[in-house]
Amino acid sequence: MNKFRNLLIATLSFAVLSFQQSSRADEGMWLYTAPPLDRLAAKHGFKPTPEWLEHLQKSSARFGSGGSGSFVSEDGLLLSNHHVGAGAIQRLSTKERNLYRDGFYAKTMAQELPCQNLEVNVLQKITDVTAKVNAAVKPDMSAAEAFAARRSVISQIEKEATDSSGLRSDVTTLFQGAEFHLYQYKRYTELKLVFAPELQMAFFGGDPDNFEYPRYDLDFCLFRAYENGKPVKVHHYFHWAEKGVQEKDLVFVSGHPGRTSRLLTLPELYYLRDFALANRLTRLYRLEVLANAYVQRSDENLQEGRQYLFGVQNSRKAFDGKLKGLFDPETISKKQKDEQDLLSRANPAQKKEYAEALQEIQDAIAITKSNSFMYGLLEEGTAFNTAFYTYAKTLLRSSEEFKKQNGSRLREYTDSGKTSLELALFSSEPVYPRFEEVRLADSLRYFEEELGLNHPVVRKIMAGKSPSVRAHELISQTKLKDASLRKSLYQSGKTLTGSEDVLIALAHEVDADARKYREVLEIQNERKEQAHSRIIRIRNEVLGLHTYPDATFTLRLAYGTVSGYQESGKTVPPLTTFDGMYQHSIDHHGKEPFDLPTKWLKAKSKLKLNTPLNFISDADIIGGNSGSPVLNRDGELVGLIFDGNIDSLVLDYVYTDTTARSLSVDTRAIVEALKSVYGAGNIAKELTSGHIAK
Amino acid sequence: MNKFRNLLIATLSFAVLSFQQSSRADEGMWLYTAPPLDRLAAKHGFKPTPEWLEHLQKSSARFGSGGSGSFVSEDGLLLSNHHVGAGAIQRLSTKERNLYRDGFYAKTMAQELPCQNLEVNVLQKITDVTAKVNAAVKPDMSAAEAFAARRSVISQIEKEATDSSGLRSDVTTLFQGAEFHLYQYKRYTELKLVFAPELQMAFFGGDPDNFEYPRYDLDFCLFRAYENGKPVKVHHYFHWAEKGVQEKDLVFVSGHPGRTSRLLTLPELYYLRDFALANRLTRLYRLEVLANAYVQRSDENLQEGRQYLFGVQNSRKAFDGKLKGLFDPETISKKQKDEQDLLSRANPAQKKEYAEALQEIQDAIAITKSNSFMYGLLEEGTAFNTAFYTYAKTLLRSSEEFKKQNGSRLREYTDSGKTSLELALFSSEPVYPRFEEVRLADSLRYFEEELGLNHPVVRKIMAGKSPSVRAHELISQTKLKDASLRKSLYQSGKTLTGSEDVLIALAHEVDADARKYREVLEIQNERKEQAHSRIIRIRNEVLGLHTYPDATFTLRLAYGTVSGYQESGKTVPPLTTFDGMYQHSIDHHGKEPFDLPTKWLKAKSKLKLNTPLNFISDADIIGGNSGSPVLNRDGELVGLIFDGNIDSLVLDYVYTDTTARSLSVDTRAIVEALKSVYGAGNIAKELTSGHIAK
Repeated sequence: MNKFRNLLIATLSFAVLSFQQSSRADEGMWLYTAPPLDRLAAKHGFKPTPEWLEHLQKSSARFGSGGSGSFVSEDGLLLSNHHVGAGAIQRLSTKERNLYRDGFYAKTMAQELPCQNLEVNVLQKITDVTAKVNAAVKPDMSAAEAFAARRSVISQIEKEATDSSGLRSDVTTLFQGAEFHLYQYKRYTELKLVFAPELQMAFFGGDPDNFEYPRYDLDFCLFRAYENGKPVKVHHYFHWAEKGVQEKDLVFVSGHPGRTSRLLTLPELYYLRDFALANRLTRLYRLEVLANAYVQRSDENLQEGRQYLFGVQNSRKAFDGKLKGLFDPETISKKQKDEQDLLSRANPAQKKEYAEALQEIQDAIAITKSNSFMYGLLEEGTAFNTAFYTYAKTLLRSSEEFKKQNGSRLREYTDSGKTSLELALFSSEPVYPRFEEVRLADSLRYFEEELGLNHPVVRKIMAGKSPSVRAHELISQTKLKDASLRKSLYQSGKTLTGSEDVLIALAHEVDADARKYREVLEIQNERKEQAHSRIIRIRNEVLGLHTYPDATFTLRLAYGTVSGYQESGKTVPPLTTFDGMYQHSIDHHGKEPFDLPTKWLKAKSKLKLNTPLNFISDADIIGGNSGSPVLNRDGELVGLIFDGNIDSLVLDYVYTDTTARSLSVDTRAIVEALKSVYGAGNIAKELTSGHIAK
Repeated sequence: MNKFRNLLIATLSFAVLSFQQSSRADEGMWLYTAPPLDRLAAKHGFKPTPEWLEHLQKSSARFGSGGSGSFVSEDGLLLSNHHVGAGAIQRLSTKERNLYRDGFYAKTMAQELPCQNLEVNVLQKITDVTAKVNAAVKPDMSAAEAFAARRSVISQIEKEATDSSGLRSDVTTLFQGAEFHLYQYKRYTELKLVFAPELQMAFFGGDPDNFEYPRYDLDFCLFRAYENGKPVKVHHYFHWAEKGVQEKDLVFVSGHPGRTSRLLTLPELYYLRDFALANRLTRLYRLEVLANAYVQRSDENLQEGRQYLFGVQNSRKAFDGKLKGLFDPETISKKQKDEQDLLSRANPAQKKEYAEALQEIQDAIAITKSNSFMYGLLEEGTAFNTAFYTYAKTLLRSSEEFKKQNGSRLREYTDSGKTSLELALFSSEPVYPRFEEVRLADSLRYFEEELGLNHPVVRKIMAGKSPSVRAHELISQTKLKDASLRKSLYQSGKTLTGSEDVLIALAHEVDADARKYREVLEIQNERKEQAHSRIIRIRNEVLGLHTYPDATFTLRLAYGTVSGYQESGKTVPPLTTFDGMYQHSIDHHGKEPFDLPTKWLKAKSKLKLNTPLNFISDADIIGGNSGSPVLNRDGELVGLIFDGNIDSLVLDYVYTDTTARSLSVDTRAIVEALKSVYGAGNIAKELTSGHIAK
């Protein structure tokens, strides 16, 4: 850490805190290396010890699929959301035995089911490598050269760290490139499914209730981490809080928020609002209609497309909430005020540098804008919306990238990413050719619509055929449905540029263009990052307010208070109960997605109906926090994050605690359900005792 | 009719027919003034008499809401689709008594329910007024002047015809402006609901089955026309066919196809494919997601938004099918071949004129393109997506337009359109402020997204507020929810440009711009029409193939054969039965929208399960044909059109009978259902006997 900055923060902290107590009380997704000690002490009279922090850090877990979780017993039991574990649970499901839909319970360890393609990481060590990274960039380098130099040194640091420690080692860019930290994780890839409730319970209320509150979701599942065929023994895991939470309690969230953009400048917010998010949402509307129409045709279609549809609806609501926030003039005026504050206190030299940095950002946006379109179609592959195409592209590029030096490869082909890449590529997750064809046909038409039928790339790819004919041809002819074939192609190490597989051939045809657009965009991102480093330096010099960096899917500590909020003049209370869940189902005539499993209808009389089910707090969270453990002052588990309300989505850009709330599953509901509904007393006991029940 | 053209057709008819027997056997939406006598005789050995034609014409009816129907008893009983009558049935529904959802049956005439806002027209007389219209256009007029002159003379012709006959008199533009015919209708506005099945039966399979086949929809309803409080006595009505239809039967469709575009040139098809339809579909995706999310939240929301959602989904599927057709290279190459054929036979002067006309069209498209965007937002009102805004705009413009000469008014404010306008404006159809607000908020954001927040019109309309705040303000403050207030404002004749109502004020703020864009687009349409007249003249000179004009929501005669088609190597049979319906429901576990009413589940044992329910034919139909009577050679009723399959949607641009099919409800199903399920034997008897059962 920069000592100058620390000093500044210390000097200003009183003024800052007195302001923040009123307007942004519990803001922040804090680094474990720089926790908000002063704020916690001043507002909540709470002083976490280094041991308390280490315990939280090492009990928390990151799920490879983009979520969070935690160890909850010394025998490697892992708790997360059902929706975080969904992919793994689906891969274990068959037509005859649909675990994803109907739930699963391993009565004994022998019954626990080995998961494919699931990776869990636990953060062990953080090292500041900023100086090392910056040393690789020389003052006379162009943006492209600086980008390459930085990427190369980062790969090198990661490789050295991996080789010497055996830990997964990722360099994380913080504060928009002002700092670089090396995060080292213990990696678990041998995981078994222990328990999952029915999808109905985990996602009760479905898409209609998603991002809403009050809520009634039992959105959890349990895995167990193994090593060499035996359950791991962990030193750090969360103890069950006997008492649970109540209104006004202080709670902590230790998880992996995916991405925030709180330091974005106004031109960047305008770019998001008027271009990037709006375009993405437009695309999601189309995909949602497509998938929705598909799943409604038959049971089989529903089985094939349900998870994809959920994903699209979830993203659509998330982008919609963000855009809603950006279209609120108050969001923008907060940002404008913030900029005015900065400039009113800056000296002429700082003002000049700020203007220059802002101009850099605007220039980079202009170039990004004019290329993002082709980038999306070709490199992100929105023109070829099928999992098979992703396989084809990964195979093609693997055969090229792995021949290069680690530091010169595309990011996802560096050594540190290899395990994840292989897990995804060799996955025997079911893929449904009929559904893939429907999606590919629509995306090929999208491709034609967007570029026009006379565009040379379109002519090349479509070969004079209609989207549906071309999609049928590609899906029916590709051999990449076969996981073992993918594996052997990959392991052969042969160059695939001349492959006979229709989809690899297609990937090859667009590859040069796709790489070109990617390079253009990466250079612009690098320019923006450099401009942001300058702005952050100015901010620190002028305001000294530098606190926590934007989220980067790395471990953070947030905190807040369990509290309701006002809506249409009424107070929404902060906790819901099983009783409320039954009533909510009755209000919707028990119709999907408000239907309850028979098991639950039967168990009603046995259940303690006033058991808290979900609760909310104003802790600062965002996507990626799903499954994060929620702890009390004693570091005991009281819940796990599973959602934020719609008003919380603007937290991507600016913190607010007026109506924005994080949503958690209450741990009391989990134990009560395991005992009284699922007859899974042994798991309940492991959770409350911290070790396997003997 | 032009004698020269008739002669040409006669001379060429053999060559034409021999070609058409193979490749476009039963093409055509024929004018009653020029029926395809030769074709019918040659292919089907059938020669309709003038009396047969007159009987079909005068038994057929047009529903104001955009559908077709027919008289089916001498006592004014009218048959159409449930989805054509939906608006009227919904307006009769209350929270306590949901006729739209649960169905309705008037056991006695006293129980028949008076409908609001429903108009039925029956075509009495057709007069060619081409010469009169053309005489008003002088050779030295600009496109704008020609447009105004034509509009003025058309209004005058309509007014004179209405005044002298008492009939609704509309001048219809045919053959893209090459001909103008005066259509005169007997108008019925006193209508009562007699029977409607449950929505589940009429729309069994819902959106998933919409535009698909096999189908199982009992999509019909019955109204009765009254005059001065008594059922009308009609001379022309359709007699029930005792035998029904079977495979290979020749059938006739006498209905009101809404719009086809078969004479469009290639630049126009490209404009539709690459711009207009694609944009419209993009907008529909958004509206569908919005409405779908809304209706899923609660029963109340479902009641409020269901019909809107159905409408959007239906349009989305329709546009999707059309685009699918346009993205099929064969559609375009057919058109290209057609153009090449024409040009290869044309002389240099004709080629030159063709090229000029095509250039005119291209120029008009360019101007249309650059203005259509603002036209959509402001004049079509996609920026203000609420029924209340439509009321506001109608009131504002009424107060201005009705002060002008009939011929100078906007089309929908001319005297001949006044009744329809008032019916819509004074409607006491329930409108739901909460749903209106959700739609308005989203469309205001769309408005901001599309134009940018700094656009002067956006700044003026949004007044610095967020879309949701502004929408709430507008919907909660407008007084236009009150039908009687709308009526008194309208009847006062006062200029409303200074109105205090927030929505009228808003309509006033955009009105000048909206009118400006409309004028630009109308002039371009006029240019295109004139260019098309030239192209049609060249086509007639060169090919003499002139047969039937594009559809214009006026009465047409189509015909075809009851026949299945090939799909994935299997033959889809042309008829379905009640038995198939029950099985289809079972295949979907009886889940919505595949659930059957209890009444139907109970009646299963009493029903003749092999009764035909739906059938298909290759008759040439398009949207607007919904509810059209389907007749056998004897002019007896065997069914009514209720849909086309997805492959039929390309019929908008080009006829094909490979897999495109029209879908009909079989009249045998109607009688069987009335007798065995609904206990409505008296209605069944009226249908089969042609008069009220005594």
